Amino acid sequence: MFLFSRPYSNHVSPGTTVMGTQIAKIIKSKNQQYKEGKKVFCSTGWRTHSVINPNTLEKDVMPKFYVLPDFGNLSPSLGLGVLGMPGNTALFGFLNICDPKPGETVVISAAAGAVGSHVGQIAKDLGCNVIGFAGSDHKVKWLKEVLKFDAAFNYKTKDVTAALLEAAPHGVDCYFDNVGGEFSSAVIYRMKSFGRVSVCGSISSYNTNPKNLPKVPMLQPAIVFKQLKIEGFIVSKWAGEWQNGIERNLNLIKAGKLIYPEHVTQGFENLPQAFMGMLNGDNIGKVLVKV
Amino acid sequence: MFLFSRPYSNHVSPGTTVMGTQIAKIIKSKNQQYKEGKKVFCSTGWRTHSVINPNTLEKDVMPKFYVLPDFGNLSPSLGLGVLGMPGNTALFGFLNICDPKPGETVVISAAAGAVGSHVGQIAKDLGCNVIGFAGSDHKVKWLKEVLKFDAAFNYKTKDVTAALLEAAPHGVDCYFDNVGGEFSSAVIYRMKSFGRVSVCGSISSYNTNPKNLPKVPMLQPAIVFKQLKIEGFIVSKWAGEWQNGIERNLNLIKAGKLIYPEHVTQGFENLPQAFMGMLNGDNIGKVLVKV
Repeated sequence: MFLFSRPYSNHVSPGTTVMGTQIAKIIKSKNQQYKEGKKVFCSTGWRTHSVINPNTLEKDVMPKFYVLPDFGNLSPSLGLGVLGMPGNTALFGFLNICDPKPGETVVISAAAGAVGSHVGQIAKDLGCNVIGFAGSDHKVKWLKEVLKFDAAFNYKTKDVTAALLEAAPHGVDCYFDNVGGEFSSAVIYRMKSFGRVSVCGSISSYNTNPKNLPKVPMLQPAIVFKQLKIEGFIVSKWAGEWQNGIERNLNLIKAGKLIYPEHVTQGFENLPQAFMGMLNGDNIGKVLVKV
Repeated sequence: MFLFSRPYSNHVSPGTTVMGTQIAKIIKSKNQQYKEGKKVFCSTGWRTHSVINPNTLEKDVMPKFYVLPDFGNLSPSLGLGVLGMPGNTALFGFLNICDPKPGETVVISAAAGAVGSHVGQIAKDLGCNVIGFAGSDHKVKWLKEVLKFDAAFNYKTKDVTAALLEAAPHGVDCYFDNVGGEFSSAVIYRMKSFGRVSVCGSISSYNTNPKNLPKVPMLQPAIVFKQLKIEGFIVSKWAGEWQNGIERNLNLIKAGKLIYPEHVTQGFENLPQAFMGMLNGDNIGKVLVKV
């Protein structure tokens, strides 16, 4: 099972193993702490087999190798999604940066993705007014009918400002931003005083030349006069609370408060296709490849 | 004595008294708490004389009327600058949002203004590496020679990115932003991980149509991957600590740590000229008019 990470690939030269994380089974071990048959989370890139010595593993800010916690009857693949990095991204990135309160209005971009859909469900559970944006009518329907978002829009066919005037006439308190760019400028100019923006991703710039970034309306007038706080994060920031995050998300699932779709492709040879499909926005929820 | 405020003037129709604050002398009073001869701070706009009833004064988030604290031998005009709103803006807006540490690199735009020059001196006193940008060679010289900034540049003749590569080759920790726009995008892309930006003003947009804001390179890639925090503020946020702020700045002056130039124009009839001069960047420090 693989999870994809993209924005870092700009810095990688051809021939390098593509980065990615996986849930793997230990098929041979000389280390008593990591017994054969155990499932582990590891960050070894797109590989069918890996040899790992946990004692000499390069130190990183991100957890790179650990025995999967007990998920009960749930699939170990959740360790790559809702009970792994994307789940912790949603939980910590939303709660710790947006600090949402019951009754507040929350906007989420890329809302049908693994992280966005998770954030929206936490916000609903808190009693927020939740507005999601996604890139197809199919996703919008799913956000409204299955996840019970208060409103959802297809940003490809609906003007963002018009959508927000409709669904949040008094303004936006929290914005969980996965995309950046023009879309985010439009949301930020519809925020209330003391609004909070958690910047989790910048999808709209990932295919652009970093030396020639897209130009968008400047944000400072909104930032000053509405006294906004905009904070970006990488989930490694909360590496010290990793297992606690997994446990909290596991509890949300057990309480029936979290739906976590997975889009699974079979076969190592289909990795590139699955990766590109994810970038094209073909999928709802976490995109995984089963080897 | 008058202090100017500009960005709010977009919303005001012709015929309205121009907003501004002043230090005035009470020349007649029936209120025992406000005796004749006392100096007061008040926010009554561009007027030679005002009648005020402190008990029926409209409540505002900003302090609008108070008897000036005892400044000792210092000029009461400081109540409009370093010992008033601009002084509290610099003190609270820099320390509470940027949270600067000794040895960190601090960049300040509009650094020769009342607020910018104050921020730079607090940063120097803390032991930071201080880099200022201003709009004339005369101001740059003053920042370096009189205020002892570690580096200063004329943004009209020096490329911002090149200046920062020279004066802050390892990146910027704190940015006190008075201007916004292209300038700020350039600084933000030179920040270190976990950098903090305090957005105090957006001068570059004040003369533009709010419906057609200047377009600048999008900020989200820097915000996410450098995990930046960008926060805007209006100094009214710290209205509850107003007198404490004045006292702290007074102590800095007494300790010889704060130079606070004032540019004084004589005569009520010269208010418009002084106001426009300030917008043209003709002055160093606080622009005041003595009536």
